[in-house]
Amino acid sequence: MTKVGVIGATGMAGSAIFREAQKVGFEVTAIVRNSSKAKELLGDNIEFLEKDAFELTKSDLADFDVLVNAFSTAPSQAYQHVDLAAHLIRLFRETDQPRLIFILGAGSLYTGEDHHLVVEDIKKTPGSENWIATPENQLSELHFLQEVKNVNWVGISPGASFVAGPAADTILYGKEELLADKNGQSETTSGTMAKVIVKEIQEPAHKKERFTVANG
Amino acid sequence: MTKVGVIGATGMAGSAIFREAQKVGFEVTAIVRNSSKAKELLGDNIEFLEKDAFELTKSDLADFDVLVNAFSTAPSQAYQHVDLAAHLIRLFRETDQPRLIFILGAGSLYTGEDHHLVVEDIKKTPGSENWIATPENQLSELHFLQEVKNVNWVGISPGASFVAGPAADTILYGKEELLADKNGQSETTSGTMAKVIVKEIQEPAHKKERFTVANG
Repeated sequence: MTKVGVIGATGMAGSAIFREAQKVGFEVTAIVRNSSKAKELLGDNIEFLEKDAFELTKSDLADFDVLVNAFSTAPSQAYQHVDLAAHLIRLFRETDQPRLIFILGAGSLYTGEDHHLVVEDIKKTPGSENWIATPENQLSELHFLQEVKNVNWVGISPGASFVAGPAADTILYGKEELLADKNGQSETTSGTMAKVIVKEIQEPAHKKERFTVANG
Repeated sequence: MTKVGVIGATGMAGSAIFREAQKVGFEVTAIVRNSSKAKELLGDNIEFLEKDAFELTKSDLADFDVLVNAFSTAPSQAYQHVDLAAHLIRLFRETDQPRLIFILGAGSLYTGEDHHLVVEDIKKTPGSENWIATPENQLSELHFLQEVKNVNWVGISPGASFVAGPAADTILYGKEELLADKNGQSETTSGTMAKVIVKEIQEPAHKKERFTVANG
């Protein structure tokens, strides 16, 4: 049976991924700092590993076929996106397993005729100074990953808005460009992200690259 | 008294930096995996911290004013240059002290009229497939550092050849371009590197940037 660990399983994306992975019959472990919160949210009988993600060791994780990093944190500590990616990559240098799946942001996607980074648009949004550190560091996280040649990683960016909600009936796929539906909406629900990640686990289609998905 | 830790103090660069730092009266600690090797090379009465660099904790290092990373490893494990930089950066996020000084390679410098990376020239050198991983990963290390905004770091690249030897009488300084002396030689001796690092500790001139030095 496919063994999947989800870091940040109590978060918006992580909890949706946890449930979708359970639904298809994977053996899923919630990797969380607070197991009582995880049980309350995900059920009393779940498998969990209660540990700060930065303290995870190779032996903690070596049994997983796939590790999904759905870590999130406050913008003031957004550099932890980079640091956790670096920590996980270090544990699994020169290996193929577990496969590491990183949920990234939309800021690292390109948009517009001049092919600019979405993070540049975010910077121009009033109030974004309070949270710009998150897309900026998720961009740095992608840059870091893109130079990693000897670990089995994949990154996934959502659309401009990443919100809780069920999977879309139609899912749009892309690589480097921000996606939008036919009405110009660029949105990815947590259910869509979860469905895409479970499919990517079942039928690996991306390797050492980032791709993007949005609700159609 | 200025407290300096040197990671890799038994290596070519590290040992020269250790001795030069001692000479100017810094309180220097050799951070090494093997203290008997360090004592043999650097003297019986040295201060040392015997630990794998990847196991170093914040409290191990918090007393140092400056930490010099002169780590080196075999090309087959060159990714450890990136991983150790990421580990040290993570320990000191949102701090100004210790100051972290990273010795980088020449591969990340630019050269030629078309301003290409030195690593591209290295790739064309016969036999370089055996060690290209080192300049490639030191380039990734620089890329990683360049996105770090909340740690007090500086990087230093030597010239095309980085060899054991005394400090030059004349030292050339640059930023992004490979340096060469008036005969076209691009060489940095360990003594030159040591002298420059000690001077940079005494009179900080670079912050969150990489610079380069070579024998004049």
